[in-house]
Amino acid sequence: METRTPSESRTVMTDLVLPSETNPLNNLFGGELLARMDRAASIAARRHSRRIVVTASVNHVAFNRAVPLGSVVTIEASVSRAFKSSMEIYLDVWIEDRESRTRSKANEAIYTFVAVDDTGRPVVVPCLEPETPLEKQRFDAALRRKQLSLVLAGKMRPEEATELKALFEDH
Amino acid sequence: METRTPSESRTVMTDLVLPSETNPLNNLFGGELLARMDRAASIAARRHSRRIVVTASVNHVAFNRAVPLGSVVTIEASVSRAFKSSMEIYLDVWIEDRESRTRSKANEAIYTFVAVDDTGRPVVVPCLEPETPLEKQRFDAALRRKQLSLVLAGKMRPEEATELKALFEDH
Amino acid sequence: METRTPSESRTVMTDLVLPSETNPLNNLFGGELLARMDRAASIAARRHSRRIVVTASVNHVAFNRAVPLGSVVTIEASVSRAFKSSMEIYLDVWIEDRESRTRSKANEAIYTFVAVDDTGRPVVVPCLEPETPLEKQRFDAALRRKQLSLVLAGKMRPEEATELKALFEDH
Amino acid sequence: METRTPSESRTVMTDLVLPSETNPLNNLFGGELLARMDRAASIAARRHSRRIVVTASVNHVAFNRAVPLGSVVTIEASVSRAFKSSMEIYLDVWIEDRESRTRSKANEAIYTFVAVDDTGRPVVVPCLEPETPLEKQRFDAALRRKQLSLVLAGKMRPEEATELKALFEDH
Amino acid sequence: METRTPSESRTVMTDLVLPSETNPLNNLFGGELLARMDRAASIAARRHSRRIVVTASVNHVAFNRAVPLGSVVTIEASVSRAFKSSMEIYLDVWIEDRESRTRSKANEAIYTFVAVDDTGRPVVVPCLEPETPLEKQRFDAALRRKQLSLVLAGKMRPEEATELKALFEDH
Amino acid sequence: METRTPSESRTVMTDLVLPSETNPLNNLFGGELLARMDRAASIAARRHSRRIVVTASVNHVAFNRAVPLGSVVTIEASVSRAFKSSMEIYLDVWIEDRESRTRSKANEAIYTFVAVDDTGRPVVVPCLEPETPLEKQRFDAALRRKQLSLVLAGKMRPEEATELKALFEDH
Repeated sequence: METRTPSESRTVMTDLVLPSETNPLNNLFGGELLARMDRAASIAARRHSRRIVVTASVNHVAFNRAVPLGSVVTIEASVSRAFKSSMEIYLDVWIEDRESRTRSKANEAIYTFVAVDDTGRPVVVPCLEPETPLEKQRFDAALRRKQLSLVLAGKMRPEEATELKALFEDH
Repeated sequence: METRTPSESRTVMTDLVLPSETNPLNNLFGGELLARMDRAASIAARRHSRRIVVTASVNHVAFNRAVPLGSVVTIEASVSRAFKSSMEIYLDVWIEDRESRTRSKANEAIYTFVAVDDTGRPVVVPCLEPETPLEKQRFDAALRRKQLSLVLAGKMRPEEATELKALFEDH
Repeated sequence: METRTPSESRTVMTDLVLPSETNPLNNLFGGELLARMDRAASIAARRHSRRIVVTASVNHVAFNRAVPLGSVVTIEASVSRAFKSSMEIYLDVWIEDRESRTRSKANEAIYTFVAVDDTGRPVVVPCLEPETPLEKQRFDAALRRKQLSLVLAGKMRPEEATELKALFEDH
Repeated sequence: METRTPSESRTVMTDLVLPSETNPLNNLFGGELLARMDRAASIAARRHSRRIVVTASVNHVAFNRAVPLGSVVTIEASVSRAFKSSMEIYLDVWIEDRESRTRSKANEAIYTFVAVDDTGRPVVVPCLEPETPLEKQRFDAALRRKQLSLVLAGKMRPEEATELKALFEDH
Repeated sequence: METRTPSESRTVMTDLVLPSETNPLNNLFGGELLARMDRAASIAARRHSRRIVVTASVNHVAFNRAVPLGSVVTIEASVSRAFKSSMEIYLDVWIEDRESRTRSKANEAIYTFVAVDDTGRPVVVPCLEPETPLEKQRFDAALRRKQLSLVLAGKMRPEEATELKALFEDH
Repeated sequence: METRTPSESRTVMTDLVLPSETNPLNNLFGGELLARMDRAASIAARRHSRRIVVTASVNHVAFNRAVPLGSVVTIEASVSRAFKSSMEIYLDVWIEDRESRTRSKANEAIYTFVAVDDTGRPVVVPCLEPETPLEKQRFDAALRRKQLSLVLAGKMRPEEATELKALFEDH
């Protein structure tokens, strides 16, 4: 099966923070950002797999910075690793200052999607071949995250999670 | 400071899956469910802390079951552990069959919220005292999740994560 | 046919008042609350009848208290009486104070739903058996409301509305 | 104080039934229509009073006809009677057939609004002077509805409700 | 084929400017007004043609006046000229002052719609017969706009655009 | 004053067509696309001017291709010419085929925005320096469009519209 690069699935979603999406402190609701990131990640997964895709999990999202009303928010999403029928999508969220035009990182997030056929059954997806150093680093970390998620779900025994075990045993 | 129980923050949000919230397979969008859960979790966190609260992180959400258009979805959220100014919220998502009225688990999710004052600065929250066996089990696991999240963020050295280390070293 | 109790259809919908739902005084729009109550009532009617249900009428809704932006609003809906294919749903709307956590009644409302089959034709629903004193009181009043609504619509002659007539003739 | 006619507050709101507003039978949700009627009624009340207005009550709404997806819905609202600071608004809802262009009545509804100042306190509104036979008939019925609503709320003794009493005592 | 007048397609859409539709200056977003006008114009086109209609183009819209939050906005749309299967729709947008009840023009806009059958193929529409002086003036100008649009799209040679050419050659 | 290039304001907004945005033929509503393009154009105008910006006009939008439900739509917007305080924004709209991943042009559109200060008064914006052949071609055409718009609005006499006149007089 064909191999694809992260840049082939790269998705850019730039939009405003509208008044209907803000909390009592006038910042973007966490839930709204989660929904936008889900749409961006689904487009990246679809571009990689050329299939219908459905959200399988949200691995971890930290909301480090408030995103105020009226901000321009840019979400960049690419597939960071492909497994059999699932894909890990890495998202970077940026906000930009109107006057200086400098942009700063507001969030990172990792979603997992599964490619399915018309009846909802999983189908095999192409492999991912990372190119840049950052893409390679995220590709390697994706395996540890996968093992961690299997261990936490009780689907893998801790001693089999070789990538993960190393993290704790070296000390 | 006062202590509160999970049942004091328990929040029930029952609602329909509307046509505007569905994907091409006619199931609820992952992103829409994430947004609803964020609102339910924020109410639970607010009931525990009696403060303004903001989303700090989404720890892990697995979308195990599709939620079809027209479903009745019930989200139940309670605080599972309180730290200094942050609270872990555990959410159970149920869908019910119209004809048999039996309900089945569609998802679990864990969010973290921080209590803040009017200027957005973190404030101390009451302790949580779990009562039922399930509440106690979630309370204990919350500490492991907190350590894991600190290790992954590089804010705690693996050897300090005593709760977590045990998981791997026993083998 | 089977009989059900009000608690079997009891539906709790807790949610925030979002900025997109407020009027120029920064309170929840009456129309938004009507729409939310319609969804909660439809779930209660569906739980009682286990059928597709459609709104037949809104009997009377008084907006006694403004519901400010950012409030936590809880709508509780149960079937208060079942007729042949229609059901009266009684709704209580509560808002809670963030700091004291006390809750106060904001509204009451009464909706009527009809159970239908897939083609939209009315079908018979189970009887309702009230249990608590409040449920019994609402069950009795439902008959007077039904008669009143038939009289006002010209579908019942006033002298046949025995329950209602008593109200005026005693004086 | 000035007097105004129903035609001075007459408000026409024509719009489509959008896919996001439909129930599982592909008809307009009752709750969505209630929200639209609330907006139309508030404009009529504002045109009569030239004040900020808030929903006081929904008197009775019967959903006689389903309104299918894609329909053109026209809501016509006018003040039917003005009391001290409250106004009764009568609404007629029409749907039209695309091919024959004939329109048919889908619903009638009656809302009550109160005019308030910037602090939310009730203010006196102009009187209403009905002109056409239909306007006069609705104007007279409005008094009966007001008395009925006061009796049901326990704010007027049945024997004082002269207009209403006549309805039952003649028999 | 039958002929229709502009008043037969006249569509009035009165609605409020809601908080979710405003920009950082608290005025209605241009994009929201464009979406509302599109819905109003589509109803006018449908009333003229009695067919499914789809937006073909937006000819020119000037946003001369800001429309503040809470305004009552009235959009009036009528077919201004019918071509083979396309119709030009002329829209006038009014806002009214709450206290004086005077209304003032906020915008004008011109949209073009095409009537189609169930498969999306264009179908012939009735002719338009303007009645009032304003309707006649807009009917005549519609031909010039059509020619201009064909010239700009490279589908008509400038020397064939007789109506348009006159505008420039007289000088 | 500083000069900026079109690439400095280039804005990419990729998103899905959601079920709530579709018409009876299951294609994206023209009005929804107009609203999305308005948001994308406003971000491009803001990036060029680093100011608050408001929509001044929509010059012309042709809807050549239907955009079906579930499509991935990419809007690309850049400033095509800056005048004193106004900016012309040129938008290209693309849809992509899921299986072949080829993308095709669905629409072009031209919006004009004005930069304003906090009180809504126009302020001067930087000049635009086009770089690529396409940018230069759009930059030149922008002047003709500006003259045409002034002539049609009666704010410029046709014989002064030198760029535009040439188009007709050569024949």
